[in-house]
Amino acid sequence: MCSNTTLPGRALTGAAIWGTEIHSLRPLVAGTSEFADRLKLLRARATACVDDAVIARASEILHAVRTGGDQALLSAVETYDGVTKRSVLELLFEVENEAAASDGVPELNTQLSAEFRAAVHSSITAVRRFHEPQQRWIESGHYAIEADGLKIEERVFPLRRVGLYVPGGRFVYPSTVIMTVVPAQLAGVSDIVVACPPAALASSAELRYVLQVLGISEVWGMGGAHAIAALAYGTDTVRPVDFIAGPGNAWVTAAKQLVRGTVGTDHDAGPSEVVIVASGDAPATWVAADLIAQAEHDPRAVAVLVTPSMDLAESVLAALTQQLGDLATAETAVEALAGFGAVLVTEDLEQAFEVGESLAAEHQQLMGAAAEDLAPRCRAAGALFVGSATPTCFGDYAAGPSHVLPTGGTARYSSGLSVLDFVRRTHSVRANSEASASLGRTAAALAEVEGLVGHRRSAVLRAEALAVDAGESS
Amino acid sequence: MCSNTTLPGRALTGAAIWGTEIHSLRPLVAGTSEFADRLKLLRARATACVDDAVIARASEILHAVRTGGDQALLSAVETYDGVTKRSVLELLFEVENEAAASDGVPELNTQLSAEFRAAVHSSITAVRRFHEPQQRWIESGHYAIEADGLKIEERVFPLRRVGLYVPGGRFVYPSTVIMTVVPAQLAGVSDIVVACPPAALASSAELRYVLQVLGISEVWGMGGAHAIAALAYGTDTVRPVDFIAGPGNAWVTAAKQLVRGTVGTDHDAGPSEVVIVASGDAPATWVAADLIAQAEHDPRAVAVLVTPSMDLAESVLAALTQQLGDLATAETAVEALAGFGAVLVTEDLEQAFEVGESLAAEHQQLMGAAAEDLAPRCRAAGALFVGSATPTCFGDYAAGPSHVLPTGGTARYSSGLSVLDFVRRTHSVRANSEASASLGRTAAALAEVEGLVGHRRSAVLRAEALAVDAGESS
Repeated sequence: MCSNTTLPGRALTGAAIWGTEIHSLRPLVAGTSEFADRLKLLRARATACVDDAVIARASEILHAVRTGGDQALLSAVETYDGVTKRSVLELLFEVENEAAASDGVPELNTQLSAEFRAAVHSSITAVRRFHEPQQRWIESGHYAIEADGLKIEERVFPLRRVGLYVPGGRFVYPSTVIMTVVPAQLAGVSDIVVACPPAALASSAELRYVLQVLGISEVWGMGGAHAIAALAYGTDTVRPVDFIAGPGNAWVTAAKQLVRGTVGTDHDAGPSEVVIVASGDAPATWVAADLIAQAEHDPRAVAVLVTPSMDLAESVLAALTQQLGDLATAETAVEALAGFGAVLVTEDLEQAFEVGESLAAEHQQLMGAAAEDLAPRCRAAGALFVGSATPTCFGDYAAGPSHVLPTGGTARYSSGLSVLDFVRRTHSVRANSEASASLGRTAAALAEVEGLVGHRRSAVLRAEALAVDAGESS
Repeated sequence: MCSNTTLPGRALTGAAIWGTEIHSLRPLVAGTSEFADRLKLLRARATACVDDAVIARASEILHAVRTGGDQALLSAVETYDGVTKRSVLELLFEVENEAAASDGVPELNTQLSAEFRAAVHSSITAVRRFHEPQQRWIESGHYAIEADGLKIEERVFPLRRVGLYVPGGRFVYPSTVIMTVVPAQLAGVSDIVVACPPAALASSAELRYVLQVLGISEVWGMGGAHAIAALAYGTDTVRPVDFIAGPGNAWVTAAKQLVRGTVGTDHDAGPSEVVIVASGDAPATWVAADLIAQAEHDPRAVAVLVTPSMDLAESVLAALTQQLGDLATAETAVEALAGFGAVLVTEDLEQAFEVGESLAAEHQQLMGAAAEDLAPRCRAAGALFVGSATPTCFGDYAAGPSHVLPTGGTARYSSGLSVLDFVRRTHSVRANSEASASLGRTAAALAEVEGLVGHRRSAVLRAEALAVDAGESS
């Protein structure tokens, strides 16, 4: 029961949660300083702030694995994952073997409910269906420009070796495996590696089932900064990857920031966020459930309702109190709602829309009759869920787009994980002798202005050559 | 004269440059430990390593501008740009006015040579021609998936406000304006801002001419970490941007790393690089000129020849010595060649190809008769130049692709600056009542496994609703 949970320095009772103790969760009305202050706080929310101490410690772990190789990795796994192994090869999790069973029925199938297995297959089907059209981006990425003896070919290639991090602390996340592996596979990455804390792999048949269904054969039981180090730098046994994607805790986030440049990484994943813009007719029970679903992720999660209706605001607050009363994750949700929760009452629907756009949240929901009118104008969020029948949790598990989305307002300039994150472009340039002479003159004129005399000479040599053949044999 | 230049702690004479003093520029033969050591050094070259002291000082400057606004910015401009202004508005450079002249002929046109102006227009035409097909990526990025009552729409939008940094210390770079502005304009970014050290803007009519031709009206005369701070955080007067691109010195690179997350940035730009893979028939004079053109950029630039021909290696070394003798930028070029230069002699052409691929250089050239045979298999570099008639400097100025390219081996996972860097994707999800019930069941089954009970409730509420209308009015 929520009334029995205790936050640091603060005793909660059902009555005290909303109104007295957590000031932010009174309705805040547009035009008041409280409204303005809360909005300012929300706009300035961090993206993925990591404690300096965590960065310093992660840096030490990275250095140890980089210089110490296999032995340092084994030592870190023992310290942080609580697992003792004699060789790094023993960290490889034998997912494939789970499928082998004497009666021909994969063993995992008999351990898991038909309902769960059907949900996994529905999710994979939806994620594939949504991402397949992005393969067209790859196709249209190939092109050639030919003009005046100059030929430039642009080509797009899948990355060669990619590491996907799947977190596993309090919770296990089979869904994250689907949401990162499927886009990489559709991009054509041939070499996909997963790293995950060994306790999660050992305890969760569901996690192993998803890895097995997706055909991931290289799964490392290691979790945290040392796992990122092993993937980025390689060890005697672990071959390094070119790119690391997937969410993680503060250690993983810090480590990913520190190895960026040695390998590529996806965007930093900050605390999860939802902003719900609702007209007064939206169902209060559902609004409350959707705010809680976001808030339970993380004590620093963001969950905001913006509505012109004071009636809806008050109904939602009442529903929140009621729903938190019997929720196992209430402690985290309450802390999140106190920190970055808000119920904002605007002058009208237009102002509610503007607040939503200005926050550029990871997830934005539009609820109530106004949803369809507003939808075409909403473009700031990482993902938009239109109508009360479409909550954010559909995006987390089942709709199709990857649930790895930009947080902390970074949706202003970045996008959710997709097939495109797993490809790179490169081009080739070829000039015939006429083009070479012409480009040589252009390059020489610009190099001269820039003071780069060596560039100028390299260009002039071509401008002065009468033909390529003369150059080739000179 | 190179023989008169002095490097720290090292007196150079023409004879001593290539043999005694600079050990790396003897031919290094495959199979020897020298060859292996040099290759190891090159493979481990830094991407954009910035001194800890620079990062610490850049962090202080960022903090000052973030908290001190206009006054702090003016103070930093005075300290670092050497310019004293009474208001931040005075930092705005009035490029537009340059076009106004009493006789109807833009004043800049009369100041600049016809040759330079023609080169600018050739370059802009080529850069537009190469990047225009990338607009197709945007078009094919829009799509909708409809299945079983679920509709997902993927949309692509240009970024709203973008800051482009144009460096200007010892040199000015009109070409960098072209190479960053054109892709942003083709992406449809409506609000493009340029920042550049005021001394470069004031002294270079060429730079102002390019800004004028491209129609950039918001140009800030400020350069360094404080310029990045003003763009990223905004000040009382400067409106913040969503994304910052463009190369810069160590201060700018450090500042861009530190503001990443508050705004987006392009990849870190490390020292420039060329790897030339050549068969024995390649023209030694041209090879040497192209190595020097890269080495003159930066004391830490990378310039490498890989060839199976000892004859070519020796001819190129002789040509380097000769060409450096009368080069104004020789001091920088010699320091770069000593640091990350190499002449590697391989067993055969195949090994030369493999060395090239393993280095994933910013620029790779293929020279000599082998060029066309090797080209289709070369895919690791940021940009490939095929044939002796096509040197890297064509890409720097005139070929078409942006010259902002991945360095330090990051071409393994990243790509040159393009239209795609200036757009973002977002999607909307809509479920009708049947889809909502179905997705609700899938999401509930997966949320249950993950222990996220709030997610499960959010999903179950939809799974249990008979119709959306019932939900909307509940």
